[in-house]
Amino acid sequence: MFVTFEGGEGVGKSTQIRLLAGALEAQGHAVRITREPGGSAGAEAVRHVILSGGAESHGVRMEALLFAAARSDHVETLIRPALDGGSMVLCDRFMDSSRVYQGITGNLPEPLIDGLERLAINGLRPDITIILDMPAAEGLERARARAFKAAELANAVPDRFEKEELETHEKRREAFLDIAARDPVRCRVVDASRSVEAIARDVLAAVEARISERQDAGVEA
Amino acid sequence: MFVTFEGGEGVGKSTQIRLLAGALEAQGHAVRITREPGGSAGAEAVRHVILSGGAESHGVRMEALLFAAARSDHVETLIRPALDGGSMVLCDRFMDSSRVYQGITGNLPEPLIDGLERLAINGLRPDITIILDMPAAEGLERARARAFKAAELANAVPDRFEKEELETHEKRREAFLDIAARDPVRCRVVDASRSVEAIARDVLAAVEARISERQDAGVEA
Repeated sequence: MFVTFEGGEGVGKSTQIRLLAGALEAQGHAVRITREPGGSAGAEAVRHVILSGGAESHGVRMEALLFAAARSDHVETLIRPALDGGSMVLCDRFMDSSRVYQGITGNLPEPLIDGLERLAINGLRPDITIILDMPAAEGLERARARAFKAAELANAVPDRFEKEELETHEKRREAFLDIAARDPVRCRVVDASRSVEAIARDVLAAVEARISERQDAGVEA
Repeated sequence: MFVTFEGGEGVGKSTQIRLLAGALEAQGHAVRITREPGGSAGAEAVRHVILSGGAESHGVRMEALLFAAARSDHVETLIRPALDGGSMVLCDRFMDSSRVYQGITGNLPEPLIDGLERLAINGLRPDITIILDMPAAEGLERARARAFKAAELANAVPDRFEKEELETHEKRREAFLDIAARDPVRCRVVDASRSVEAIARDVLAAVEARISERQDAGVEA
């Protein structure tokens, strides 16, 4: 079973992925955690190009192509083999992030995004996508606090993806909710402005429900 | 004016580009020589990912996406600005190589190659494409001799693109000729199994003819 986590910056994706992994492992599942961009050797090389200072001047077309290239490598060399080996794969961002970041706020036409998505995922769609949702201002505040702390610790410039403004965050939140509305079987929206524990309970319940559905349908988790 | 050179390995593209550049500069043209994959900073970073040893295991989908990403950066940060600045740009390989290497011998479907091409070139088609043509066995022999010499000098492994077999070379030759047949206004096939001087004369004549056509049509070279 392939589980992806989506949502804006600061919504708590990595925390929830760790908690879900722990809960699933306690139930006896083999779990593999990964993230995008990156996750596999080839994709990490591309991630380096995307996130490098020089990459800040890349156009959105090049960026969309690089994300798709990294995703293709990630799917074929890590996600698909891990699933074939019987693991559950939990992935921090996947195709919906491209739809939102390069498509909606990057203004790339949807047919183009569709084409890149098909090419990159090569038939491997998530079984369930958890969309962590909170008001844009709250997520932005959390992301900024984290970036500031990281910059203090590492004496580094905050990640370019954290430098965005509130309006853009708001657009992205709407875009993730729109994806969920258009694909309600795959997507579950979880209110991420509550306590970590309450969110984790909902996430686990959603994933367990999907596991049950698949078992009822005769598919191994 | 944007001139691209295409053809299999060992057909003499870089030699002919240098000779053409010299002839055009002698006529007073500003000339910029570049190559793919690479040519601009972002594209060179992607080239590194493509050509790295690890990249040898990349799937053809990832490879096609990486070439398109590199091309997008190359077009927007080097080729288009150079043309806008009044230079002639001579480029060693461009979109037709993707069509041949990832499309024909990589077996990627043509609609997918078409989509990546549109995305990468963003409207910037070559004004003339010189396809250097020679029997596949001859080109392969020359490419092997060069790779062997480079390996001796640098104690390096020959470039992965030189490791191909005769049958693949033959397919590519046919594919380049097919592109020329389908786009006869843009493409000029030049017999590259003759002397360097004879080839250079034909290349220069073809480019001068295109410059004249454009001047007659009121477009600056």
